Amino acid sequence: MVKGELLASRIPRMRASEIRELLKLLDQPDIISFAGGIPDPALFPAQAYRDAMAAALADDISGVALQYSLSDGYGPLRDWLAGEMAKIGISCGRENILITSGSQQALDYLGKLLLSPGDTALVGWPTYLGALGAFNAYEPRYDRLQPGENRPVADVAAAAEAAGGRVKFAYLSADFANPTGRTVDRAGREQVLDLAEALDIAVIEDAAYQALRYDGEAIPPILALELARRGDIEACRTIYCGSFSKTLAPGLRMGWVCAAQEVISRLVLLKQAADLHSPTINQIATHIVARDHFDSHVPKIREVYRRRRDLMLAALAREMPEGVEWVRPEGGMFVWLTLPEGMDGAMLLVQSLGSERVAFVPGHAFYADGSGRNSIRLSFTLHDKAMMDEGIARLGRLLRNSRPA
Amino acid sequence: MVKGELLASRIPRMRASEIRELLKLLDQPDIISFAGGIPDPALFPAQAYRDAMAAALADDISGVALQYSLSDGYGPLRDWLAGEMAKIGISCGRENILITSGSQQALDYLGKLLLSPGDTALVGWPTYLGALGAFNAYEPRYDRLQPGENRPVADVAAAAEAAGGRVKFAYLSADFANPTGRTVDRAGREQVLDLAEALDIAVIEDAAYQALRYDGEAIPPILALELARRGDIEACRTIYCGSFSKTLAPGLRMGWVCAAQEVISRLVLLKQAADLHSPTINQIATHIVARDHFDSHVPKIREVYRRRRDLMLAALAREMPEGVEWVRPEGGMFVWLTLPEGMDGAMLLVQSLGSERVAFVPGHAFYADGSGRNSIRLSFTLHDKAMMDEGIARLGRLLRNSRPA
Repeated sequence: MVKGELLASRIPRMRASEIRELLKLLDQPDIISFAGGIPDPALFPAQAYRDAMAAALADDISGVALQYSLSDGYGPLRDWLAGEMAKIGISCGRENILITSGSQQALDYLGKLLLSPGDTALVGWPTYLGALGAFNAYEPRYDRLQPGENRPVADVAAAAEAAGGRVKFAYLSADFANPTGRTVDRAGREQVLDLAEALDIAVIEDAAYQALRYDGEAIPPILALELARRGDIEACRTIYCGSFSKTLAPGLRMGWVCAAQEVISRLVLLKQAADLHSPTINQIATHIVARDHFDSHVPKIREVYRRRRDLMLAALAREMPEGVEWVRPEGGMFVWLTLPEGMDGAMLLVQSLGSERVAFVPGHAFYADGSGRNSIRLSFTLHDKAMMDEGIARLGRLLRNSRPA
Repeated sequence: MVKGELLASRIPRMRASEIRELLKLLDQPDIISFAGGIPDPALFPAQAYRDAMAAALADDISGVALQYSLSDGYGPLRDWLAGEMAKIGISCGRENILITSGSQQALDYLGKLLLSPGDTALVGWPTYLGALGAFNAYEPRYDRLQPGENRPVADVAAAAEAAGGRVKFAYLSADFANPTGRTVDRAGREQVLDLAEALDIAVIEDAAYQALRYDGEAIPPILALELARRGDIEACRTIYCGSFSKTLAPGLRMGWVCAAQEVISRLVLLKQAADLHSPTINQIATHIVARDHFDSHVPKIREVYRRRRDLMLAALAREMPEGVEWVRPEGGMFVWLTLPEGMDGAMLLVQSLGSERVAFVPGHAFYADGSGRNSIRLSFTLHDKAMMDEGIARLGRLLRNSRPA
């Protein structure tokens, strides 16, 4: 028996996530789930991956594809990604790219790179639940990142010092963030850079949803804006985390980090110590699929998800009782509902699973301080009209029958 | 720019590994390398993986194989592994198995689970370099694990306490260890269990090479011996780390942990926070390959590596000058050479790459205290007779021409 006293000091913070428990519910066929932030498997480029895996395992290359490889990643994939980054204003080379096992792993490594216990991480209220999970292993304190607010920088730094560390980074997803679906405008992005410069901290830009814009004008990534200021990625403090999970498929676990070489080279050492490298074959196959299909595949996904977002927004407008609010997302996978003050998303979920058989994620899971109880996250990626209408109608019925505690 | 003061306290310990630098040398065709502990790619079951990937990406299952999945791993693979564990005396169920991205990841997660800064890890002098790399991220102190030595347990505990922590685990590879090729006999394994009980610590059993026994009698894994003592895996403190890297192929990054459920469930949370799950498709394909080919494939690998071990041992007996010693390994991938006192394996490598073009790993890299300079590690997996003879002859020439500093 491995007793509790043998556990590291970080372990009490590593708790089970509601999302994980909720994913298990997806197996029950009568549930209409708006819970998991998962892509529609019908959109996966399965045929392309079938061909790519066969190519990666052909006689002349299988010895490479099945062998150990370097921790920084497969060169041709890193080159392809550097080319993609250039298209969004981030001029860089292979040496600025690390391949990770999904962007989740990038968040783990960045916590490991930057956080000592008691250091402060600035995150949104709410923010991506998985980022809190990854960072928690390194025992940070959280403070609130609110682009555009007028809180004096010195206060933020002083609060961090009083807690026994210093502010290390600001983490945010600037496009169609999980969970809110909100986008930080250009001015907000510039403010984050100003704040990071004033505090002398890193910026972790989680770009997991960036490619999934359905309307409106694309805004340059934070790293692109910083690069425009400084002229050279090597002078930038922004660390960009990308993912193939939402554009190709998540089951391969393929993501990347784009940053200054000195950051990449340190992350390479962390990756080498943590899992040696991401699976060689997944990198080779993903390179083939990305090179040959990315540009034609992503617009197809956007078209489907745009339609589903519009279906959800239309259903919400029809079904939600007064006092429930939401912001129209320009992309991504989520609509964030703010419920009347006093209502509790977690309680509502329990009721919903009992009576209406609709699943969603209670909002407070996304708050570092556990607040935000009167909010819920809905994902619109999985359902077409009939299920969407039925699910949102059930949710509306539930909300009409619920009263603030 | 991300300045040094932003880095976590662990980072100074995360240094570049000589093995990584050495792997880069493998690209130069005139080098005869005994360095990397890598399997012969000619032995990979490429056709089996080609078929398995096609099966995993067939229309009816590709939506599963390319999708997110649960952090603990693919059920059928966990079931298959539980069956394999039973064959070596470890009766357990799916709930005792976590799928990891190689056993390297298991070591990272176990460091994360058990180590707070200043805690003590007991490791061999020498031990697996990658284990030190993984654990270093959690800032432990190391003390020497020497099965059968007579150092009082109270002294080990007191030294750990004086260093500001406590002993958390003993880490060892009991079969044909990397780097020494040595096997801990049954009495030694029982002594490790006695020590762990006396110190009330966990045992991390790294079984990466266990399936690669070429002669002699198999000895039960430490977890099997503990299970025989306690009667139930749930009462065991031993945490077994397995790997497919040496039996099937490393490029998939497939490993597993077998332990008490309370350990597995905590590791699942760490994995969820760190990378969500190992690639779904790799797990499905590996299950198919393991189920259909493991029992016929592993004996073929053993036959090839047994012959190469014998070739290396014969060449060493022929070529090594007096004063160079080695132990005949009963399995695995390595022969460990102890050079005359005063010689330095790292210096020798520099000379070797300059004149003889033979690569190996200097022994001191495997010592937590940096000692062991008069040793080198040779891997025998990659070469057949002509290259083996030539490489070892070159090494013999180099050693005959070298003098202790």
